[in-house]
Parts: sequence; C-alpha cells; structure tokens
Amino acid sequence: AAVRHRYPNCNVVGIGRNRERLSFATDKKLLTSWSDSICSSAIPEKSLGIVCLPVDQIAAAVRQLLDCGCELVTDAGSVKASVYSDLGDVSALPFVGSHPIAGSEHSGFEHADSNLFEGRKCVVTTMPGSPPKERSDNVDRVVAFWESIGSIVHLMSPEEHDRVLALTSHLPHVLAAVASGCVGVEMLPFTGTGYRDTTRIAAGSASLWASILQGNSKHCIDAIRTAEALLKKFREALEAGDSILVEELWEISAQRRRMLQ
Amino acid sequence: AAVRHRYPNCNVVGIGRNRERLSFATDKKLLTSWSDSICSSAIPEKSLGIVCLPVDQIAAAVRQLLDCGCELVTDAGSVKASVYSDLGDVSALPFVGSHPIAGSEHSGFEHADSNLFEGRKCVVTTMPGSPPKERSDNVDRVVAFWESIGSIVHLMSPEEHDRVLALTSHLPHVLAAVASGCVGVEMLPFTGTGYRDTTRIAAGSASLWASILQGNSKHCIDAIRTAEALLKKFREALEAGDSILVEELWEISAQRRRMLQ
Repeated sequence: AAVRHRYPNCNVVGIGRNRERLSFATDKKLLTSWSDSICSSAIPEKSLGIVCLPVDQIAAAVRQLLDCGCELVTDAGSVKASVYSDLGDVSALPFVGSHPIAGSEHSGFEHADSNLFEGRKCVVTTMPGSPPKERSDNVDRVVAFWESIGSIVHLMSPEEHDRVLALTSHLPHVLAAVASGCVGVEMLPFTGTGYRDTTRIAAGSASLWASILQGNSKHCIDAIRTAEALLKKFREALEAGDSILVEELWEISAQRRRMLQ
Repeated sequence: AAVRHRYPNCNVVGIGRNRERLSFATDKKLLTSWSDSICSSAIPEKSLGIVCLPVDQIAAAVRQLLDCGCELVTDAGSVKASVYSDLGDVSALPFVGSHPIAGSEHSGFEHADSNLFEGRKCVVTTMPGSPPKERSDNVDRVVAFWESIGSIVHLMSPEEHDRVLALTSHLPHVLAAVASGCVGVEMLPFTGTGYRDTTRIAAGSASLWASILQGNSKHCIDAIRTAEALLKKFREALEAGDSILVEELWEISAQRRRMLQ
C-alpha cells in the first residue's frame, strides 16, 4: 500500500498461496499482478524482492526469489541473525536484511495502511562480521527503498539488532502474553483500559510469535531472565513490606517510560 | 466533570491541599465551591463524600468526612480490603467502598473527562463478612450514584475485589513496569507501538502505585508468583527449543486476549 500510494507507476507483484485473496488484493489496487508461486515469469526485470513471511521461512524464500531473477532481496522479519545463518554463505548473495519497526497485531491486506512506515524506524542490517557502518551498494539500495516510503533507517549488525529487539520488542510481547495468560475468562469483565493496552500485542499470531521467539531464542532467554529478576525484586519488596523500595523500582521504570512521550 | 455535566444543579465541592488549583478548577466549572480542609462549613447537608486519594490515606479521610457531616462516604481506591480494615469496625459507619475501573495514567483536573465512566465497570463492595449479594440501603445509594454517571456496577466483597483486581489490574501494571525497566535509554529509539502500548501504564505515579501494590500486597504477591511461573514456562520452552510448546503457551494467552475484542 505504501509503494502503490507513492509510486503509482511502480509494479507491485504479490506472491502468496491463496489465489482468491491475491486476486482480491489486486482488485483493491494493492497489487499490480500476482502469482501463487515464486517463478521467473512472475518477476519483472530488476526487481527488489521483499520477503514477508514468518522468520523460519524467510531464507528459503530469499533463495527462491534470487533463483527466479530478483536482483536484490530484503525481508521484514523481526529477527535477523538466524535468517543470515539459515542462508549460509551470505556474502555471495544479494540479500540485505530489514526490520521495519511498524505494524500491528492484525494481518491481511484488509489492514494495509499506506502511511504505516511514515516516520517509523526501520533497521537495515549490515553483512554479519562486517564493520557496523560499512554500507555496500546493496545496503544503500535497501536503505533508499525504506526511506522512499517514509521510514527512518538505522544500520545495525544482525547480532546487535537481535540483542536490542529482544528487549524492546520480543520481551514486551512475552510479558503481554503473561499478563493475558494470568487472567481467567471469568475475570475479563473486571479488566480496564490498562489491561487492554498492556495485553494488546498478545493477540498476535501464535505461529508467527513462536517463530520469532525461537529464531531469537538466545537473546530472548537473556531478556526473560532480566525480566524475571526485576519481577522478583518487586515481589520481594512487597514481601518485605518495603514501600520505599517498591516506589523506587516503580519510579525507575516510570521515568524510562516518560522519556518516550 | 461527569456529575457537573449531567446534573448542572448539583453542588460539587472540591476539597484538596492546593488552593490555586482548586480555584482554577472552580473557574473551569468543574467545582461549585472548594475548601483546603475537611470541615463542617465546607460540606452541604446530606452530602455524599467521595474520597479520591492514594489508598493508604483513604480511611483517615473517610473518618474526617463523616465527622464533618457527610451522610455517606465512598471512595475510588484500587484496593478495598485494606481500606475497610484501616477503618476498623466499619459496620457502624456509613461507608461503602467503590472502585470505578476507568482512568488513565494522567492525573489532575486538566484531564477531567465527563464521559470517563460511560459504559465502564465500577465495583461497589459489600460489607466485609456479609453475604456477597446483600445490599444495604447505603450500598444501594452508592450503586445509584455510579449508575447515574454511566457506570455498570458489580457488587463484590472487598476480599474478592482485591483478589480479582490483583490479576486484572495490579499485575499488568507491574508487568508494564518490568517491560519498561528492562529497556535501556539507548534502546528507546528501537521501540515500536507494541512497547509503547504495553508500557503505557508504567508511566503512572510511583507513590500512587507503591501504595496500591502495598495495600494489596498479599494478592499481588500471589499474582506476581503466577506471572513468574508462566514467564519461566516460556523461558524453559525456548531453552528446550520446543517451538510447539512456545506456540501453545502463546495461543492460550492470545485466545484469552481476543475474547476482549
């Protein structure tokens, strides 16, 4: 939607499994053409391929797109190191990883929003092992693509991306799932807007999130341990009746959060 | 604001510490008069007192309002059993506890919203030890008050309220604080809308929240233990590389959350 809105003459080819939905998205002018398989005839010359699949399926699709003639491929996965390692010797491949930090718990073209990326961060990853600021021509082109639809791009190594996102995205998702999972159905009428907001992202797809958490398991495990330690601090302060410590713990988190506003 | 909007002829007396802000709120037509102390001269005959203070200060204010001539007093505190126990022999007092499940992380009359209670739940508590459905005249009057400004009222015992709200409200606040506290300042640029929503309620007042958590410490400790156990399940599933279990854990929480929509 973002490309179609800004560049009406640009071909946007949709590749997926569900012919009916692809056809419907084309009727809605979100695609210029579609195919239900990755094949050379579907892919125009000098195409940029953008893989939007669960992270454990990205590498295979990248290889197929390159085999079928894409000039350069990127993705939109929430983890990066495992995609590069799944690809094997990536230095020979025209692939550059991306992670647009934008989206919602909804999926499907019905929720397409041409302004989704406007002013939002997008991480573009440098080749694993290369200096963090080294920008190949391919990296430059992927950066230019995201900037052209309104994103603010940051370069990171895949490993650095995964460490940071484990804390800024994957952990909050797990904590949202925990907040949701602790409330029995019979208690739902007594939830307020706080519960609603805190748990919103827990409504996302289970297969998608299992794949993200598993794909970044090393850093997610570390992040969960960090959260367990802080949660234990809150509990022990309450057990000790130490209101001052409870208030201090709260205030550290509150100050952090207020910086966002 | 809700009363002033619906019942323009009803007196709404504001009692607080800050004369300047009370005067300003009166200029803004949110109050009909104000006082900087709880005293008989400030309180019209047959008044309903509504104590909106941190939970550890509620009982003292209830006693003062009754001493100064309020006919009946309620409150808006997020915990209930500790308020009743602070009051001592409550059966002799015209006090009925309330907890309107509505609000935001903001405080101050600048954020007053006359529709805040419209369609929102409000718990009104029955006398401790009395049958849960027993409604005294005083309970009926407090129920009628909240309904008159749009609330949907549920009756609960103070103990039941605290057990349920520990899971539906207090725990999500602690988890939001944990999600916020785990992210370093340098990582804030790489947070998205998920982090923003999940941590919104962590920006609330530290003294207010320390007082709520401490005032409901028994049930909050139990709730935090429940969350720690679920968080550990997620971590151990990731450590074992058990994607199916990760997906199952996620799906239980996701289904729960989707019931809200």
